[in-house]
Amino acid sequence: MSAPNTLTATEIARRIDSGKLTAEAVVRAHLERIDKRDSDVLAWTHLARDAALERARVLDRGPRQGLLHGVPMGVKDIIDSYDQPTGYGSPIYGTHQPLADAATVALAKHAGAILLGKTVTTEFANRHPGKTRNPHNPAHTPGGSSSGSAAAVADWQVVLATGTQTGGSVIRPAAFCGVYGYKPSFGHFPVAGMKANTEWLDTIGAYARSLEDLALFRAALMAIPHRPIEKVDLPRIAVCFTPHKDEMQPEGIAAIEEAATKLAKAGAKVTEFEMPREMFEMRDGQRLLSAFEGPRAAADEAHRFFDLLSKSFQEDKIAAGRKLDYAAWVEARKLGERGRAAVDATFTDIDAILTAPAPGEAPLGLERTGNATFNLLWTYLWMPCVTLPYGRGPQGLPVGIQLVGQQHEDARLLDIAGWVQGALR
Amino acid sequence: MSAPNTLTATEIARRIDSGKLTAEAVVRAHLERIDKRDSDVLAWTHLARDAALERARVLDRGPRQGLLHGVPMGVKDIIDSYDQPTGYGSPIYGTHQPLADAATVALAKHAGAILLGKTVTTEFANRHPGKTRNPHNPAHTPGGSSSGSAAAVADWQVVLATGTQTGGSVIRPAAFCGVYGYKPSFGHFPVAGMKANTEWLDTIGAYARSLEDLALFRAALMAIPHRPIEKVDLPRIAVCFTPHKDEMQPEGIAAIEEAATKLAKAGAKVTEFEMPREMFEMRDGQRLLSAFEGPRAAADEAHRFFDLLSKSFQEDKIAAGRKLDYAAWVEARKLGERGRAAVDATFTDIDAILTAPAPGEAPLGLERTGNATFNLLWTYLWMPCVTLPYGRGPQGLPVGIQLVGQQHEDARLLDIAGWVQGALR
Repeated sequence: MSAPNTLTATEIARRIDSGKLTAEAVVRAHLERIDKRDSDVLAWTHLARDAALERARVLDRGPRQGLLHGVPMGVKDIIDSYDQPTGYGSPIYGTHQPLADAATVALAKHAGAILLGKTVTTEFANRHPGKTRNPHNPAHTPGGSSSGSAAAVADWQVVLATGTQTGGSVIRPAAFCGVYGYKPSFGHFPVAGMKANTEWLDTIGAYARSLEDLALFRAALMAIPHRPIEKVDLPRIAVCFTPHKDEMQPEGIAAIEEAATKLAKAGAKVTEFEMPREMFEMRDGQRLLSAFEGPRAAADEAHRFFDLLSKSFQEDKIAAGRKLDYAAWVEARKLGERGRAAVDATFTDIDAILTAPAPGEAPLGLERTGNATFNLLWTYLWMPCVTLPYGRGPQGLPVGIQLVGQQHEDARLLDIAGWVQGALR
Repeated sequence: MSAPNTLTATEIARRIDSGKLTAEAVVRAHLERIDKRDSDVLAWTHLARDAALERARVLDRGPRQGLLHGVPMGVKDIIDSYDQPTGYGSPIYGTHQPLADAATVALAKHAGAILLGKTVTTEFANRHPGKTRNPHNPAHTPGGSSSGSAAAVADWQVVLATGTQTGGSVIRPAAFCGVYGYKPSFGHFPVAGMKANTEWLDTIGAYARSLEDLALFRAALMAIPHRPIEKVDLPRIAVCFTPHKDEMQPEGIAAIEEAATKLAKAGAKVTEFEMPREMFEMRDGQRLLSAFEGPRAAADEAHRFFDLLSKSFQEDKIAAGRKLDYAAWVEARKLGERGRAAVDATFTDIDAILTAPAPGEAPLGLERTGNATFNLLWTYLWMPCVTLPYGRGPQGLPVGIQLVGQQHEDARLLDIAGWVQGALR
């Protein structure tokens, strides 16, 4: 395959820069793929066909804009764009057109990215699903809440896309769709212009089809110099099944066990992660923070448009959140602080944690987006996470593994992921 | 004075509840005060005269809505309201009308508050001033960035108002205008629907004319049960001039010294605050975090509307922020973490810190909003802060003192402030 929509962003940028490819050809190739496939995948809430082509032609006529010159990008429709509708996955907002681009959208555009369209999100990046199907089997969920972004990147409809994670909304769909997913350390990608879910957890993340692309996209979204992935010494990898291994599927367990064996053979120091005591109750801490904030962050929708909210949002976020106690919320914040300090200390002995991005293959059905249990802990602890695709499961659907790094050491995590990927080949 | 616009929110709510006062009369009294005074003070960007009266009549006809039933409120115009223009202090947004209320606006309305209007903010809650003047002397600044909220509450034009603080934007204007100001622990009031300045620091806060009102407003803005201020045992108060005492004015120093003496006489254990080593460079840490985020959170405005930004925003936020290094930003975040742990540990020996909310009286002139040096540290450390009015300075303008509490112990800080206020009378 060498159609421009099957290249990485890194390769697209390189070819455009050297005059071997035009941005217009890149956009056209993606639009053709979308025409062919999107009636099955349903990844988009809005496509900016003409605007994207026009922007491509402008870029082709002008000087190099930046790291993403001519690279098509999808943006999760929980993130504002001034030139395309932004619906937050809710009929309350419909085709609302904000006045401003969110920070990440503006930064990517400024680096030369072409906003191809907005991708499907679950309702307010919570659980009520959108229309998107898993590109590998339309009877299965693509995961959520960043459903459309993961599916579109996996299906060669766009080369880069942003998502958001409050529980497991970037990392899990990446595993279900078989692409690379990256949730940065909390607060690294600016969230200005993103519809809030749980402010203490909400993290904008990225999808791509290579680790190099994640490093490139990251640099653009933080407006920092691009630092390609570097070679690392043999890393120390701690394997962690979390306290919830009983919720895993056999193929998910097998992926981690096989990967651990291969990494050890390749020279990594592979140990079992000794989980600090503080971390055992952390899944509940994440849930408490998020539920408490439901009726607060979404107070306006809860008051004025209650009937337009899904039943699950009404019950699991609004009603449940109203029952929660302020003191318990403060305790959940303090528990998170203690947990971050405790897990940080473990990184004197390890370089990354190898764990599950999801229980296994994407479950059958589109009513649910899958189990986020294996993501909550790391989101709560603000740690950077990467999903690596790892083969297929018994139903032929993708399976992934997850690497988790030390808070703020995102570049190092991507480096280690590069080593891991090489060792697993 | 017994006109309804000179009552506290607590008293207004009580009288309305007992049938002795109508919400309509309360709104009328405030509108009359505004008619008389606002041409001098210029606190508002938008006034919702008719809508506020209509809402008052609806409230008067119906059952009690909540804690703030019938209480007029001003909202800093950096915070979204669906039914009133929201300009963020910038010509870029003009009379933009968002689709949704910010979380705090919706929560206050749901508790029965009447949104009287939007109050003047500096440009994007930074330094470039709005039109507001100090109600005690129109030649002097009211402080900023929450200029209109502090001035309107001080001038009896509204009884409660929200502000935001990234550096010293709630606490300092409260001191300059002679009202009570409260910046909660970081993340306590939900920020959804507030225009971002520096996400790691931005905190929505409150203005009132009594401590009881701050406790009442806080309960509504967090959707938690109202807990009136409680009596405390003799507190342990640590006096702190910060490492920047040389930037203070004599009346500011005198206020703290006199207050400390009175508190000791009233039985408090008054000591000098032993500032942890980590805290000495923290003013610079706050500045680095905020400047780094400038060109990122405001990326869209910087790219599309650069010429509509003030010179100070162009230079101090955008250009300066672009020069900053990612590694230095990460260090500033880590320094904040260490500082929070260090200052938290001091609260085994103390109950609150007594310090300056500002160097002294409001400076002459409207071009600058005053020195935020005495606020940066506490904002950076996410600690709750309260401004208490403390007499007048040599030019007849208000002087304040600031109490700073342990992170998350906001209710306790308000209790201690109650004791302090009693002891200073």
